[in-house]
This record gives sequence, structure tokens and C-alpha cells, in this order.
Amino acid sequence: MGYYLAVSRRSVTSTTSLSGKVKMNAIRYRDKKLFYIDQRFLPLKEIWRECHHINSGYTAIKQLQVRGAPLIGVFAAYCICISIDSFSREKNQFFSDLFEAIDYLENARPTAVNLVWALKRIKQAALLKKDMPVAHIKKSICAEAKAIHKEDVLLCRRIAEHGVTLVEKGDRILTHCNTGFLATSGDGTALAIIYEAHKRQKEITVFADETRPLLQGSRLTAWELLKKRIPSFLITDSMAAPLMRNKKIDKVFVGADRIAANGDVANKIGTYGLAVLAYHHHIPFYVAAPSSTFDLSIKNGNNIPIEHRDMDEVRKVLGKVSIAPPDIPACNPAFDITPYRLITAIVSDRGILYPPFKKNIRELITDNQNPMVNQV
Amino acid sequence: MGYYLAVSRRSVTSTTSLSGKVKMNAIRYRDKKLFYIDQRFLPLKEIWRECHHINSGYTAIKQLQVRGAPLIGVFAAYCICISIDSFSREKNQFFSDLFEAIDYLENARPTAVNLVWALKRIKQAALLKKDMPVAHIKKSICAEAKAIHKEDVLLCRRIAEHGVTLVEKGDRILTHCNTGFLATSGDGTALAIIYEAHKRQKEITVFADETRPLLQGSRLTAWELLKKRIPSFLITDSMAAPLMRNKKIDKVFVGADRIAANGDVANKIGTYGLAVLAYHHHIPFYVAAPSSTFDLSIKNGNNIPIEHRDMDEVRKVLGKVSIAPPDIPACNPAFDITPYRLITAIVSDRGILYPPFKKNIRELITDNQNPMVNQV
Repeated sequence: MGYYLAVSRRSVTSTTSLSGKVKMNAIRYRDKKLFYIDQRFLPLKEIWRECHHINSGYTAIKQLQVRGAPLIGVFAAYCICISIDSFSREKNQFFSDLFEAIDYLENARPTAVNLVWALKRIKQAALLKKDMPVAHIKKSICAEAKAIHKEDVLLCRRIAEHGVTLVEKGDRILTHCNTGFLATSGDGTALAIIYEAHKRQKEITVFADETRPLLQGSRLTAWELLKKRIPSFLITDSMAAPLMRNKKIDKVFVGADRIAANGDVANKIGTYGLAVLAYHHHIPFYVAAPSSTFDLSIKNGNNIPIEHRDMDEVRKVLGKVSIAPPDIPACNPAFDITPYRLITAIVSDRGILYPPFKKNIRELITDNQNPMVNQV
Repeated sequence: MGYYLAVSRRSVTSTTSLSGKVKMNAIRYRDKKLFYIDQRFLPLKEIWRECHHINSGYTAIKQLQVRGAPLIGVFAAYCICISIDSFSREKNQFFSDLFEAIDYLENARPTAVNLVWALKRIKQAALLKKDMPVAHIKKSICAEAKAIHKEDVLLCRRIAEHGVTLVEKGDRILTHCNTGFLATSGDGTALAIIYEAHKRQKEITVFADETRPLLQGSRLTAWELLKKRIPSFLITDSMAAPLMRNKKIDKVFVGADRIAANGDVANKIGTYGLAVLAYHHHIPFYVAAPSSTFDLSIKNGNNIPIEHRDMDEVRKVLGKVSIAPPDIPACNPAFDITPYRLITAIVSDRGILYPPFKKNIRELITDNQNPMVNQV
């Protein structure tokens, strides 16, 4: 790992804000320069940083400066691009440097499947050209990173285009957690549909759940919605129910972490409660996710393991402000399971799935799955 | 108001912690000394203060050091008791001082109905003895304050005794907001039932909703449950749904702010969602409230006005920590309405009410209502 240290440590520097542009992204890559929003400071500060090398890329992923599984994959691939000019020009040593860099980056978040998957694609692209000159291999690596990026953007685009057909003029849409351009390298999943509806002047209003305990709704989704200038209201998670009862919500759109073969959906804690409430109030409940989110090896939601996280996420806010006695036990399941019976339709990049989900999922989803676009 | 300023300003001083005792209270009155827990510092610090005079009592109510409608009423009555020795010994001037003090205290929280009601009782007790010597009037005032206190404790006691019959051995009970000894001068309403069940060794477990936005659940209820040594878990409001789905909740007990003639219940935001979820999962949903909470002049829940509070309560935590963009609009209804159809039974001090609520409420609740025990 020695050579990383030899390279410039000016890894983290601010650049000017890129706000105000119509097209929003959490990362930018141009002319071998990689920029990203440091998401730790959102929503209060929009700080753009430049990633100068593997080291700063590793730190950015590790410290959750860059988050969202699809986004991390794209970001890691670009981290290799901006670093290869510092690798050896001698081919054997070049490959040694490349593999070392890939191993290093993979460890930034060992459980992030998209990170491993994207770096594996970079490795394969390099190996495919192993008989060519180093300069040629480098070009191939950068082309592959751009391809990964382009594919992710395209998946989001397709979800948005299918999903927007479900939105009617004047719809008031409830959403949960963050499923937008801060979680993917495109416009997102559920939020991408909302952005497309707004772009097509459907005069929508959005209600964003704050999404305790980690507040992805108030910190990230509220910030995205403001950036996109979409009429929006932030609510606590418990306010969705009376809004539905008072006929203020027409549709619910959420993302998904994993979808079982029968259509059961694992998603951010709070999703299941919203689904029950929507069902009770006869409000359509839509899940938006790329085809890679479907896991046909899992029969139903009962077989999806649920991650239980640190109790302090419930006892504190923003990881530091205590809101409860420090010794009260807390539950902290990060996800919950929404049974397929409560879901009106699932919007994927390949089209909209309606019940019977088991049959329709089997037909639409082949095993040529792309793990880039799992939600986080 | 001048004479208030002439009196000692050593209004707020800490006393030793009274924790560890079996009987818990948020206020203590003994030998013309009034102590209270400064609830602003809960759950991280249990600071007991002595209230030395009207001034410090006014400040304590105004700054929410003492909160909970029934508790405020009792506290204000005792504030008069500890102050009367500084009033004039000449009878006319004594009454003038007394009325001035009452008017002053009433303005600490002008909308708190219990505050006005308790002070009115103090005034009437004094006027009833207006032909007697001042010393006699003073005794009468203090006796009335103690009576108000005793009545509040008794109402809580009766609710607990009726409600505990609904609790079975091993029950896992979900509760919302704070309805315990920090909100009343007794053991509370919904929490009083839980305390009684624990005392009777029913081996219960409690799940406490944190109750965003003001976090009465994590700040106050979690603290009370720890004090009472009841096996408990703190959860975010959105975790109730999967707990119910996974058969971890046997019963729900909540308080009430106001109950309409048909049994519709206004209570802390989040209550309605819990009621829908309980209904969906076939879990009994109980409301605990004193008979004074019933407002027979209100036909149904649609006629109960809902207070909408400052947006910053949603955009911030604990009134200071920003968790959202400062310019995102937020909804902040403080209460919601639970229709009677979702309620299994209402536990009052006069007994347990079952459907048909309209008929049974009319029969059980006379117009001789005591506003002391409304929830806040």
C-alpha cells in the first residue's frame, strides 16, 4: 500500500458549488477529474470536493462522504481512472498497482455489493486488454468506468419513464427515505419518477417522511426536493397516517433494497407501516427498483435477513445528540418487509409489474442481473 | 406585580436526587416547601429544584420545567401556598395580593385549562372564608391545594385499577408519548396502568414510541420506565408496524387529550397511525383517560380543533439541532384524531367503556367533570 502514501495528500479540497443547474448529480467526472458532494454536511452545507487519488476515494467511501450503493460503485470505478497515471508504466507492475488499488478500495465498505461488482468490471476490462500497451489498457479502464456510470443513469431513466405514467396531474405523493440523485449516479428510483413527473409539469406535491432513525428523508430527500424546486413538505414518520385520513395523499412511491421472488419487498424501516396505512386508506402503493433488486433465489420476505443496527442510532440524533436515557434498550432494525399483497405495482427499468407478482416477476426478470442499482 | 420583585430571587436551586424511591413524583410538597423535577434536563439529568415563590413558579411553568396539564394545575395551586406568608396580613390587601398572584400565574401558560381551573378553586376556597381571620383563610387555601393534588392522584389510581384488569401475564405493551408521573401528580393514565401491571408482577414488557417531533417518548417515558425498572425497549415511531407484524406486541395503551361524545379520540400525533396498525394486526387498542377528558359538547372527532405548531419542531431536534434544510416547509399537527371504530375500549376513572361508545359514554360521564386530568 506504500505507493499510495507517496502520492499527494491534498486529497480533500472544496470546489465551487454546482447548485442551480437543472441536472443534479452527487458526483461529476470530467477530464480525469472527479468531484463529489460530501454528504456528511448535507443539508446544511453543500460542499463539493475533488477526489485526487485512491486514498481520498477510500476515505470518502469509508466516512460516508459518498453513500448509496449504486453511487459508490460508480465513484470507485472513477477513483481508479483518476489514479492510473500514477501507476507504473511497466505492464507487470502496472497490473500489480491496479490490483492493489482495487483490493484497497474494496475494503472501504466490505459489504457493499456494488462496490465489489464495479471494481470487478474494471479489473476484467483491464485483463481483456492485457496483451495491449499500458496506454491502451488505461483507456479501456476509463471507458469501462464511464460505461458503468452510463448504465446506472440509464436504469434510473427507464424507471422514471415507466413510473411517470402512474402519476396524474395534481398528485400529492408520499415518499420515504432517500431514493434520488444522492443515492445513485442518475436521478434515482422512486424520486426519479417524482422528478420526471415534475419535469412534465404534472403539478405534483411531495410529502417526505423524515425517516428516523438516520433521517435520510429530512437530511437528503428534503434537500434534493428543494434543489429540484418541487413543492414539498417535510413530515415526521407518524404524520403520514392523518394526512392519508384527511385525503392529502394520492399515491405512495418508495424504493426497495431487495425484492423476493413472490414480490415481498425489503426496504428502509417505516416502509411496511406506510404500506398498511395506504392499504387501509385505499391509496396506491408503488415500489420503484431496478431489475437487479429482484432476488429470485429468495422465495419470500421471511427469508430476507434484516440488519439490526446500533441502539445509539435510536437513542441519539445525527450520531451525537442524546435524546433518550443512555441505558434504555432500543430496537433498531434497519429494514422491514412489506408483503406483496399490500403493493399495487412495482416499477422496474424493464416495465411496471402488477399482480400476480410471482408469475410476472419470473417472466420479466432474467438472471442477467445488474447489481449496480440496489438501494441503500 | 411590583411586590413579586421584592421577594427573594433565589428561586431556582438544586436539591438532592430523590431517585431510587418506589413512589415517584414530578413534584413534592411538604411543610410549605415545593420541589419539582426540571423536566428540561430529562432524561440526561434529574435535577430537583425548590420553588421559593410565585416568581419561580411562573418561570418553571413558562419554561416547561414543569409540564403536563394536570401537573401544572397542582403545581400552580402549591405555588400559592408557599407564597401566602409573604402576602399582607391586612385582609383587604391580602385578597388583593392573592388575586394578583393568581392572575400572574394564570398567564404562565394562558391556554392550559387545568392551570386556570386549579387557581379558580384556590380563589373560591379563599372567598368562602372571607369573613374569617387571614390565618384561617391561609389554612383553607393550603387545604384546597392538597385536595386538588389528592384528587388528581386518585383519578390516576382509579384508571390504573380499572385498566390493569385488561393486562394479562407476559403482555408486551406498546405505548406512545408520555402519560406517566411526569404529566400528572399521580402515576399517570396509560402509564399508570402499566405501572400497576408491573407492581402486580404481570411480567410485562413495554415498547415506547419515541414520539417525534417533541420526543416525549424517548425523553420522558423511557426515563420513567427505567426509574420504575420495567423491562422496556425504545423504538422509533416507524418500528411499531413491523413489531406488530412479527407478533411482538399484544396490546396498545395510549392517553387522550379530548374524547368526543361518539368516542373519537384526539391525542398526540402518531396515535391514529398506531390505531390503524393495531386494527390491521388484530391487536387490542386501549385509550386511558379521566372522565374529565370527555367533551360531550363535541359530537365527533371532526369538530375537535387540531393545533398546528412551529415548523422548526420538525426541522430541528430538541429545539436546536438542525436535521433538515431550514427552508423546507414542514407539517406539524400536534394531535390527530382516532375514530371510535378503531378503539377496543376506553379506560376511565369511572370504569372501562366498551362499544357502543356513544351510548356508554353518555351513561357513564355526567357533566360534573374535573378538568384536572386532561393529558398534554
